[in-house]
Amino acid sequence: MYNIALLGAGRIGQVHAANIAAHPLSRLSIVVDPQEGIALQLAEAYGASVSSLEDALSRTDIDAIVIASATSTHADLIERGIRAGKAVFCEKPVDLSISRVNATLEAIKGQENRLFVAFNRRFDPAVAELKRRLDAGVIGDLELVTVVSKDPGALPIDYIKVSGGMFRDMTIHDFDMARFILGEEPVRVTALASTLTDPAIKAEGDIDTASVTLQTASGKIAVITNSRRASFGYDQRVEAHGSLGTLRTENVPKTMLVQEREDGVTREKPLFFFLERYAESYAEEWKEFVRVLKGEVAPAPSGEDGRKALLLAEAAYQSLETGRTITL
Amino acid sequence: MYNIALLGAGRIGQVHAANIAAHPLSRLSIVVDPQEGIALQLAEAYGASVSSLEDALSRTDIDAIVIASATSTHADLIERGIRAGKAVFCEKPVDLSISRVNATLEAIKGQENRLFVAFNRRFDPAVAELKRRLDAGVIGDLELVTVVSKDPGALPIDYIKVSGGMFRDMTIHDFDMARFILGEEPVRVTALASTLTDPAIKAEGDIDTASVTLQTASGKIAVITNSRRASFGYDQRVEAHGSLGTLRTENVPKTMLVQEREDGVTREKPLFFFLERYAESYAEEWKEFVRVLKGEVAPAPSGEDGRKALLLAEAAYQSLETGRTITL
Amino acid sequence: MYNIALLGAGRIGQVHAANIAAHPLSRLSIVVDPQEGIALQLAEAYGASVSSLEDALSRTDIDAIVIASATSTHADLIERGIRAGKAVFCEKPVDLSISRVNATLEAIKGQENRLFVAFNRRFDPAVAELKRRLDAGVIGDLELVTVVSKDPGALPIDYIKVSGGMFRDMTIHDFDMARFILGEEPVRVTALASTLTDPAIKAEGDIDTASVTLQTASGKIAVITNSRRASFGYDQRVEAHGSLGTLRTENVPKTMLVQEREDGVTREKPLFFFLERYAESYAEEWKEFVRVLKGEVAPAPSGEDGRKALLLAEAAYQSLETGRTITL
Amino acid sequence: MYNIALLGAGRIGQVHAANIAAHPLSRLSIVVDPQEGIALQLAEAYGASVSSLEDALSRTDIDAIVIASATSTHADLIERGIRAGKAVFCEKPVDLSISRVNATLEAIKGQENRLFVAFNRRFDPAVAELKRRLDAGVIGDLELVTVVSKDPGALPIDYIKVSGGMFRDMTIHDFDMARFILGEEPVRVTALASTLTDPAIKAEGDIDTASVTLQTASGKIAVITNSRRASFGYDQRVEAHGSLGTLRTENVPKTMLVQEREDGVTREKPLFFFLERYAESYAEEWKEFVRVLKGEVAPAPSGEDGRKALLLAEAAYQSLETGRTITL
Repeated sequence: MYNIALLGAGRIGQVHAANIAAHPLSRLSIVVDPQEGIALQLAEAYGASVSSLEDALSRTDIDAIVIASATSTHADLIERGIRAGKAVFCEKPVDLSISRVNATLEAIKGQENRLFVAFNRRFDPAVAELKRRLDAGVIGDLELVTVVSKDPGALPIDYIKVSGGMFRDMTIHDFDMARFILGEEPVRVTALASTLTDPAIKAEGDIDTASVTLQTASGKIAVITNSRRASFGYDQRVEAHGSLGTLRTENVPKTMLVQEREDGVTREKPLFFFLERYAESYAEEWKEFVRVLKGEVAPAPSGEDGRKALLLAEAAYQSLETGRTITL
Repeated sequence: MYNIALLGAGRIGQVHAANIAAHPLSRLSIVVDPQEGIALQLAEAYGASVSSLEDALSRTDIDAIVIASATSTHADLIERGIRAGKAVFCEKPVDLSISRVNATLEAIKGQENRLFVAFNRRFDPAVAELKRRLDAGVIGDLELVTVVSKDPGALPIDYIKVSGGMFRDMTIHDFDMARFILGEEPVRVTALASTLTDPAIKAEGDIDTASVTLQTASGKIAVITNSRRASFGYDQRVEAHGSLGTLRTENVPKTMLVQEREDGVTREKPLFFFLERYAESYAEEWKEFVRVLKGEVAPAPSGEDGRKALLLAEAAYQSLETGRTITL
Repeated sequence: MYNIALLGAGRIGQVHAANIAAHPLSRLSIVVDPQEGIALQLAEAYGASVSSLEDALSRTDIDAIVIASATSTHADLIERGIRAGKAVFCEKPVDLSISRVNATLEAIKGQENRLFVAFNRRFDPAVAELKRRLDAGVIGDLELVTVVSKDPGALPIDYIKVSGGMFRDMTIHDFDMARFILGEEPVRVTALASTLTDPAIKAEGDIDTASVTLQTASGKIAVITNSRRASFGYDQRVEAHGSLGTLRTENVPKTMLVQEREDGVTREKPLFFFLERYAESYAEEWKEFVRVLKGEVAPAPSGEDGRKALLLAEAAYQSLETGRTITL
Repeated sequence: MYNIALLGAGRIGQVHAANIAAHPLSRLSIVVDPQEGIALQLAEAYGASVSSLEDALSRTDIDAIVIASATSTHADLIERGIRAGKAVFCEKPVDLSISRVNATLEAIKGQENRLFVAFNRRFDPAVAELKRRLDAGVIGDLELVTVVSKDPGALPIDYIKVSGGMFRDMTIHDFDMARFILGEEPVRVTALASTLTDPAIKAEGDIDTASVTLQTASGKIAVITNSRRASFGYDQRVEAHGSLGTLRTENVPKTMLVQEREDGVTREKPLFFFLERYAESYAEEWKEFVRVLKGEVAPAPSGEDGRKALLLAEAAYQSLETGRTITL
């Protein structure tokens, strides 16, 4: 049984808490959060106790920390957790600054196999099955990857302000997805982007509508299209095209109900947002982390995966600024 | 917090145990099962204790019993539970014999609002939404109901032997579904059935392929088609046709992955069987039972619903035997 | 090149005229219709001439007649066409009276291989492919057939009055479809029916909503569900369930356009009615008739197929009247 | 009745011939083709005569010419046809060289309203309906367009050699589609491309896998993805994303047959290639041209549309060569 300290009891921390508790080999031991009320509520629901970061790091019975706190704290917590001998499960991103990410990876050199960076979408059952079939040769040699990722609606402008910009905050998932499906490193990046959904986003100098294209040395191409607002819900699709065919994931409707009337044949909308859409992927992700704890597998996604995704975000911004295809 | 005694720690008992434990207002207190090993394992997983039926019924802190034991024990346990002042959640059916069901309902007369009969499919999110829209007039006046229900493959012959026959064991769910959607009582029943999937079923005198048609006094028609074997998985579809359109539920695929190749455009098969397909409906069903415990709603499905579904099964057998449309 | 005389220049006659003209081996030579105006218009469009029935039957250069006139004229025209040595393509039904059908088949005894009865749906590309795969063993042994057939809306009451009743007018197509898919003769028939869509239909003593179940000697079951009104359009689905799986045809949408908005994911409605939905099947049907003319295949559907479908309609009515399952 | 001279009796000429003949207001009068055999065969099938280009241009009873000959002849034939006072329906492209296209448009200055450039996909019923709804505001303000266009398999290398390269030969349709849906001119173009499907294409210096991204001055983005080989058939999808939702066209399956077995739920593949997939769009396109002949509408797509699509192809090549986002 692995004892887990959860750092951050907010929305995503609560998701992890439930998965930690539901897994037969892990137990939620400690919850750490500056907001005592929500920490206490979460701890009580799963028989855990509220404590401090220092306690979590110093207690020898704590096997791993789960970093679900504000983005700006991630890098520091990773370093402290690793130094304290813990395994570390860190919500994406490692940091919004590539130099800080580099510094952190440098700081934990030799201990990389204790850091798991939580790009949860890799564990979505449809994506995982797509990848499994791709690796099994079901569609032959991969040639083209398409990632469509649109949020249901723009987030509060206060979120946008600290988000690091759309490529680092939202597209970062798609960069990881593209790398995961491609199985090769992109070497060329070109991007076009606009701000169309909300003047407030424009005022922040951020973008909300974009397309980024990646190409690997062997010529494989990946295309990402993004929008901060798909009024019908969370639009999340991945497509892999190979020499023998295509594998693609469609949106997951709320239920399989169909309504046929004079006004059309209507199905339910996609599951609303990431908490609903990726509920299963968060659970599967935790199971994978337990396998890491057991030493059965190396952490994947790793810290290096976190860094590579951020590098692609940087390259995409550079392409926007210079009007050039960026070579990595 | 409601304290629950679970009678029966088998496959379906385990489903209920998880839902009881996951609900913020209910707690699994006692597990009763003649097979001590599985009782103990289940109790431990949820912090409950293993005990006897007598203990469960006599303890004043137990609010409700969940009957998930062998079918032959249901009627007796309902009567004892109600007598002991407990609320009773009973897996379908109340009994395979209509006279025994009548006797039980007679025995608990005046206490009906403490008996909930678990036809879980009413709580499937797609079915519940279909019913909600139907009641809201989205398709106008209901005219035709279609229920397709096919198991993925014939059950072991030892199961068939004690099942009471396909209409009482399997179609019973569809009779309840038809009544639930129709919102009126069928007054005419006609059936045709065959044994096509397995000679062993024939040897038992049972059927495995059938169609039953129901008609209400106002003329609404419901058609049930059944098979014990749909090689591609659990085929579970409901369709309601009204004056303004149709509402229908499609099978739930394992994931939304699509594969396009020279050999066709292939999607994933339906979720394999009831444990996967109706996982959500079992959870929703438990939430409904908690509302019954809180006194917010009357139990539905009720004991009378259990009796009415069995009456339709009896009428369907009678139609097979006499070659007549049976009038109820 | 086969010269064709078309008897009847109405809606369905016009469909056949276009297919006759488009086929490289057939030519529309003569159009016969009491309404001279529409006869002339149709003849001109395809370079044919307007003439009389007598002329059509006596001219030796006419190879075949196409009977697309009023139902009451079919039986007589079949007899006269066969007597005159022509091949006969007759719109369904042969007649609304089974005794008249028997008399006609008796009258043309020995010449059956010149009579083709136009149950066009057998030639629908999806149905034909379903049948081809079924016969190839793709789903193993056939067990259950489902035919859903709903018109988009009730026809004018003047049509209903002379239609012969829903089972003889509309379900007749489904009886043929069931026999075609089953590949065996039904020996048991049971039916339930109501009048729910239009009081005017009730006033005529006709029905508009029904389910008919058929069973063959080997135990195969076919279920037909009908309504005179599916407000969203023509609902035409066939399903064959066998020991290895299922083959089913879905409705054909007007286009493959999908609209995703706050109010749902909406696709286009099915093609409106038989002229749109079965345009291809009428063309394929004509190609089959040309193969009959060339002597490559025996006519199928035949006059006997027309008779058998009508017998099932009669049995369905008998079941409604007697409350019995009818044995054939 | 408009008399039409068809220049070119090959595959696409035959498609136009059938549509010309089927339209009540147009007649195929003359067929011109250096290969006399196929010219004669086509002329005979529709009651036309075989003649020379000179005859077609000098005869005063000929209203329009349809240019379906080799690409290299298009520009010259347009100029001669316009000079001779004919209306001109020209298969795409006007020419592979932008300077030649410019010269032709200069040569016919003032007569542009007699030149129709046949980008047939605009007339596909699903695309036309998408555009109609978009213009009606059904999805609010347009933000993102996606065009997926993949041929079923690489064409013969002899075709590739004279094709002008993938962007000018195949993507040209997608550039027109993007402009048609966008309703604004792209001002920025970036592209990445590879040669992955066939070494013979590489040997020709051509590409077979690509993504091109366009951006308009107002910030709307269009993404085109191409492959010369989608092993499962012709992959043709368009998607328009706006402030209120999305409109997208799915591939058109051969039939609506579904097969459900142990090995998955399988639907039919898309219609194989452009002759099958766009049969309806060719017919609708001809109807539009007849409206142009009647003076009811201005020609759209026009010669200028042909030029603009080619300019986008040139820009895409320039982006590949320079590694820059090209500003138009």
